[in-house]
Amino acid sequence: MERLSVNQITVKHWSFEETVRGLARHGIGWLGAWTGPVEEYGTRRAAALLRDHGVKVSSVCRAGFFTGRNPDGGGLDREANRRAVELTAAIGGDVLYLVSGGVRDDLDLPRSREAVAEGIAELVPYAASAGVRLAVEPLHPMMCAERSVTVTLGQSLDIVERFEPAHVGLAVDTYNVWWDPALHASLARAGDRIIGYQVCDWLVPQPHPTFGRGIPGEGAIDIPSITRAVGAAGYTGPIEVEIFNEGVWATDPDDVLATVVAGFGRHVLG
Amino acid sequence: MERLSVNQITVKHWSFEETVRGLARHGIGWLGAWTGPVEEYGTRRAAALLRDHGVKVSSVCRAGFFTGRNPDGGGLDREANRRAVELTAAIGGDVLYLVSGGVRDDLDLPRSREAVAEGIAELVPYAASAGVRLAVEPLHPMMCAERSVTVTLGQSLDIVERFEPAHVGLAVDTYNVWWDPALHASLARAGDRIIGYQVCDWLVPQPHPTFGRGIPGEGAIDIPSITRAVGAAGYTGPIEVEIFNEGVWATDPDDVLATVVAGFGRHVLG
Repeated sequence: MERLSVNQITVKHWSFEETVRGLARHGIGWLGAWTGPVEEYGTRRAAALLRDHGVKVSSVCRAGFFTGRNPDGGGLDREANRRAVELTAAIGGDVLYLVSGGVRDDLDLPRSREAVAEGIAELVPYAASAGVRLAVEPLHPMMCAERSVTVTLGQSLDIVERFEPAHVGLAVDTYNVWWDPALHASLARAGDRIIGYQVCDWLVPQPHPTFGRGIPGEGAIDIPSITRAVGAAGYTGPIEVEIFNEGVWATDPDDVLATVVAGFGRHVLG
Repeated sequence: MERLSVNQITVKHWSFEETVRGLARHGIGWLGAWTGPVEEYGTRRAAALLRDHGVKVSSVCRAGFFTGRNPDGGGLDREANRRAVELTAAIGGDVLYLVSGGVRDDLDLPRSREAVAEGIAELVPYAASAGVRLAVEPLHPMMCAERSVTVTLGQSLDIVERFEPAHVGLAVDTYNVWWDPALHASLARAGDRIIGYQVCDWLVPQPHPTFGRGIPGEGAIDIPSITRAVGAAGYTGPIEVEIFNEGVWATDPDDVLATVVAGFGRHVLG
């Protein structure tokens, strides 16, 4: 239980303040934060609230969109990426998730992918000076066109290995990687380059093209086997439950947290 | 143009007879057939109709579901698989597409995958005696849970290479493989083991979780670059346009074929 973290999006309809108080009430010691709710509450106040409730920051979501294609609007925003680095450090986090961005209309797929490595190289010195590590995360291949040209662990490791371990690492999310025939080989190769681990399940059928994620235990993914492989690779940090699902969002967040806590041992750790 | 084939599903609302007559009318010399419409029309009559219209069979869809999980109903049906082999030979085809099946509830993912290789091994002698080659096709990873535990070209080649080239080969569909960072390496590795090539585009955004395919030129895939790589690997056979899309199905099939023909040179061959 001391490794359980809950991502802000899992309790989407709670404000930052409600989320931190809720996590503390359920005995959850880690938060996966998003920049928006933190900024809305005020970064300095957020840091104080977290401290007062004994909740630490497992990661911050997100910077990136290095290809310039972001389906949520806007392109590559270097200023926003630097602000995300500052915010991460200010609330006591040291892992900032990156989302690569989709295929740019004026670049082919290989060159869109090269733009990601270039964008990270540009952000690294800034992150390093703030003591923040950048987490390269492969998203599911179904998001390649719109959201992330980075789609496999192996490909992400090829990027991660261009940089110092102190500044850039790998993020593993069960939903994004469970299907990969090279999953276990890539996790073994990653070793201590893994700096973030998120879990959720793959619902059958998928209720929504991007919000089809379920609470661990509800879907097709053998999460405990992935947790063991991530552990065997050397990762011992927080395990973040991050769920995009309209049904979960429509449920009382206190009930969602109770379900997550009750199932964590069996459906995540195994 | 002599390489253009159209898959039956692209003109879903046409019967087998309407499809063969329609293809001939548009100067299209190849059909990707489905077992259902052929059986409905009668296999012997179908063979005669194809012959009379000078339309050849580029492939037949489909056999498989070796894991026992088929979202369209039923599990592994060995009898249906053998019937599909016979049908393929009877209408003059020599390539039968396989769909692996999804994750079986009582097997984990690695063992579900092993069940696929075992199922193919069981079908090979039967297909070989009928002169039909079995085409192993990776589907998109988003179909891993429900429809196909076989999801990458590399993984599919590992299966294909267990068997003789005369009996088992690889099928490449742009929609399923375009995102793969190992795409070009895997195509080069495949060489003359490629026995089927299907094209369609990836629409942005995807209008449907499984029917999100577009006519070549409408989406994010650089199809000509894949066609060139498939050709460089050694494949010189028909190129099948296979589109699952409710908008396309709601369009007059004659208009769909006219659009496919008009765009084939530019958006498929490049």
